[in-house]
This record gives sequence, C-alpha cells and structure tokens, in this order.
Amino acid sequence: MSAVETLPRTRLFVDADLAAGAAVSLKDGQAHYLRNVLRLGPGAAVLLFNGRDGEWVARLDAVGRSEASLTLLAQSRPQGPGTDLWLCFAPVKKAAVDAIAEKATELGASMLQPVFTEFTDVTRVNTERLRAHAVEASEQCERLDVPEVREPVGLRDLLRNWDERRSLLVCAEAGPARPIAEAARALRGRPVAFLVGPEGGLSQSELDAFSKLPFVHPVGLGPRILRADTAVLAALATWQAISGDGTRRPPRPETGAEV
Amino acid sequence: MSAVETLPRTRLFVDADLAAGAAVSLKDGQAHYLRNVLRLGPGAAVLLFNGRDGEWVARLDAVGRSEASLTLLAQSRPQGPGTDLWLCFAPVKKAAVDAIAEKATELGASMLQPVFTEFTDVTRVNTERLRAHAVEASEQCERLDVPEVREPVGLRDLLRNWDERRSLLVCAEAGPARPIAEAARALRGRPVAFLVGPEGGLSQSELDAFSKLPFVHPVGLGPRILRADTAVLAALATWQAISGDGTRRPPRPETGAEV
Repeated sequence: MSAVETLPRTRLFVDADLAAGAAVSLKDGQAHYLRNVLRLGPGAAVLLFNGRDGEWVARLDAVGRSEASLTLLAQSRPQGPGTDLWLCFAPVKKAAVDAIAEKATELGASMLQPVFTEFTDVTRVNTERLRAHAVEASEQCERLDVPEVREPVGLRDLLRNWDERRSLLVCAEAGPARPIAEAARALRGRPVAFLVGPEGGLSQSELDAFSKLPFVHPVGLGPRILRADTAVLAALATWQAISGDGTRRPPRPETGAEV
Repeated sequence: MSAVETLPRTRLFVDADLAAGAAVSLKDGQAHYLRNVLRLGPGAAVLLFNGRDGEWVARLDAVGRSEASLTLLAQSRPQGPGTDLWLCFAPVKKAAVDAIAEKATELGASMLQPVFTEFTDVTRVNTERLRAHAVEASEQCERLDVPEVREPVGLRDLLRNWDERRSLLVCAEAGPARPIAEAARALRGRPVAFLVGPEGGLSQSELDAFSKLPFVHPVGLGPRILRADTAVLAALATWQAISGDGTRRPPRPETGAEV
C-alpha cells in the first residue's frame, strides 16, 4: 500500500482530542522538537496519538519558537483495546529506573507503580521523569497509548488496597516459586500485575506476608540472580510471549527499515 | 545449612586452576578491589570461580597494593554443564551495547557475537569492554562461567561459516515470522542462536537472504517496535523461560536478601 509507505516517521503523543479536520496546537517542548531538532517546516507531516482516538496524520501549518499548529488529515490507525498488564517495582537508582520505565513501556505494560519495600534504598521517585520516558518510549515503539505512572506507595498499602481479582506475580529469588512460564500459562486471560523487588531482594517478613495472600503467586525467573531492571524485562517479555500479545506483529513493520 | 549462611558474598572470576589447598594470586584490579573497595584484610573469605572447576571458598592470606594471595579451602558449588545459547547482535551505541553484554550474561547466554549488518551505524566494537561487563555480570548473577565474547564479523561471513545444526532465530520486525513462544517450543532441546539487528532493522536484501537458509527461523517479539537492547533481553528471557533453564532456582537464594 503506497499510503503506508509514505506515512511520516515522527510520532508525537498529545493531549488534544483528535478528529478529521481538527486543528491541534503543540507548545514549547514539542514545537521546539519539530522546529529545531527535526527541522520540519510548514507542509511536513507527522503522526499524532492521544491514547483515545487512534493515530492521525497531521499536516504542519506553522511552526514557531514556542508553538506549532497542525491540521489533522486522516486517521492512520484506529485505537485498539490496549493491554492490561501492571508492573509494580521497587525504585532503583536513576539509570536503572529510567530503563524500567522505557522498557516496560516497550513491552506493553499498562501501569507502572513504584513500591517502597523493606530493602528499597531509594527514597524518592521522580514520577514526572518516568512519565516522560514512558511517553518517549510509546512514541518510538508504535504504541497508541502511554502507560499510567502512579505515585509511589509502600508495599503494605499496596497490598491492603489490592483488588483480589488481579493476580500479583511476585518475582522471588528465595522461597518456593512457580516457574514463570508455567504461571503465565495458568493465568492466561486473567488480569495480572508483576512485582519486582529491589537489588536487595524481598525481606523474609515480606515473603511471609505474601504467603498468606490468595492473589499472590511467587514466580521464578531461572537460576541466576537478576538485577532489578533485568528481572522487570524478563517477567514482562515472558508474559507477553506466552499469555499476552506476543503473537501479534508490528502495525507498520517497514518503519523498522526506514533509515 | 549453616555453611550456606556463612558463605562470603564476594565472587570473583579468575584464570587460575582451582583445587583444595591451592594458592591463588590476584593481581592489580582484583587486588585493588579486595583491598580498597571492599577493604578486606587477611582472614577474609571470598568465592572464586574460573568456568572450569566450580566455585571455591578462598581465604585471603595477604593483600597488598598490586597483589593478593589466597588459599582455597573448599568447593562451594560443582561446575555444572552450563548453558548453550548464542546471541548474535548488531552493535549499538555504547550504553546499549554495555547493557546487552551485561543482561545477556544474566540471562544465560553462552556466547556473544557482534555482527555488522547493512544498517549498523557503529563501526567499532570494544570487545574487551564487553568482556569486562560479562565478567562482572557473571560474578554478580551466580553464574559459574562467563560467556565467550567473539570479535565482530560481517553478517555475510557469519552466515557463510554457520554450522547448520544450530538454528538461527532472527528477531524480525518486518516480513513473516513465527511468534517467539511457538518457535521456542518447537526448537526445545536444540542448539540455537538469536540474531538481533540494529535500531534501523534488517534490510530487505538481508531478509531475502535469510529466507533461503534452512537453519534460519524468523521470530516475532510482538506488536511493538523494540529497541535493540530490549529485543535482546526479550528474546533471551522468553527462550530461557520456555525452553531453557527457566524452571531452575538460584543456588543460594538467600544471597538476594543479604543486604
């Protein structure tokens, strides 16, 4: 399809409602990006998505220092149902937590929940920075939505307010655990969340508390001790491959070769 | 077992042969690490492994500026058979390629082969640095061996010299591909290698060449376009979970909580 071949490569996540003929105004950071980084001028085309209205081809009408105005031409992809895959993770040091936000987005997480556990060293989480990483990763990986990034909570509060209909798969290095592939097959089709602890692991009292909760399933990620960010990726990737959307293909695979 | 509880937490990869009562001498970097980073003195215990003789508890006898001498006390773990899982990857920019070496090691890759493809931007690979990352990751993740890091080759040469008994699973964003979970189940028990292309993807002529090779299996990693380092992790983690050692547990899970 020639329409596909000529689609623009720049994708931006926006807040505005998207519909045929609508005008969209982009501010500061995004205007700067179009003008000074991509050096696009009037007439250039970009793709916009907002997590609700699918993806649209937009024509750049004017681009100034702090504002760019665009007109929506046509929808290039409809909004699909999205994924339902939560990630609860103990915040780790900056580079690793940034990688978690970026790669969990690429792997289709729908919600990112930082959780303070007993052995969590980090005491503050810059959720705005994590959101920015999630937006950028969504723009690059062809998602039509951006995962929700929640404010951090303590593990106790997380468990107290947990909706028991969602299974919590706790990545556990110690204690009995079901291999992740087996757990993924058993829980296919049900809403799940993964919990990945900090570099120091989960404490014995945390593991004991989990053992009393019917919605918790300890899962094992194999014989090696993984870093926290590796464990996040391994868990999400394996879930998607076995019980998630791993059988689907990219919507526009030729994007990958357009260099 | 109290012997397990009192095992030292420091693990070092060494070249020397390891046997009961043997003396081992560590030079420069490792001596510096024991003395100045960990601040260990005579009498301290560390774990040593060399990829051949299992893991040993060693007693530090003396530690100087540029040399440390140790005596091997007892084997703490026998050498297992190790994994057979190759990773061929197009080199990417420094931080991402370092992450590939580190995380592929954690996920049990046995060999890391940088491969220049048509759209590979990077022209040089510091294999010594990648080896250092692989060693450090092996020390931290409880492996008893270190993956071999080979010198880079061109894709054409790689394919020309390929042993056809090993299946090459090409992570392909474009063209027909089998979902990775299905491929992993079908190829269980056989020697495999993954190939992950650069950010720009594989070229059409590369994909055409693959289609004529009986040992190549294009595999899909789901509907999102993954960065190269994310694709490496997703492929290796999924393989291990479905057809690798994902059902095994860490040898000393309590290490994770010893913070």
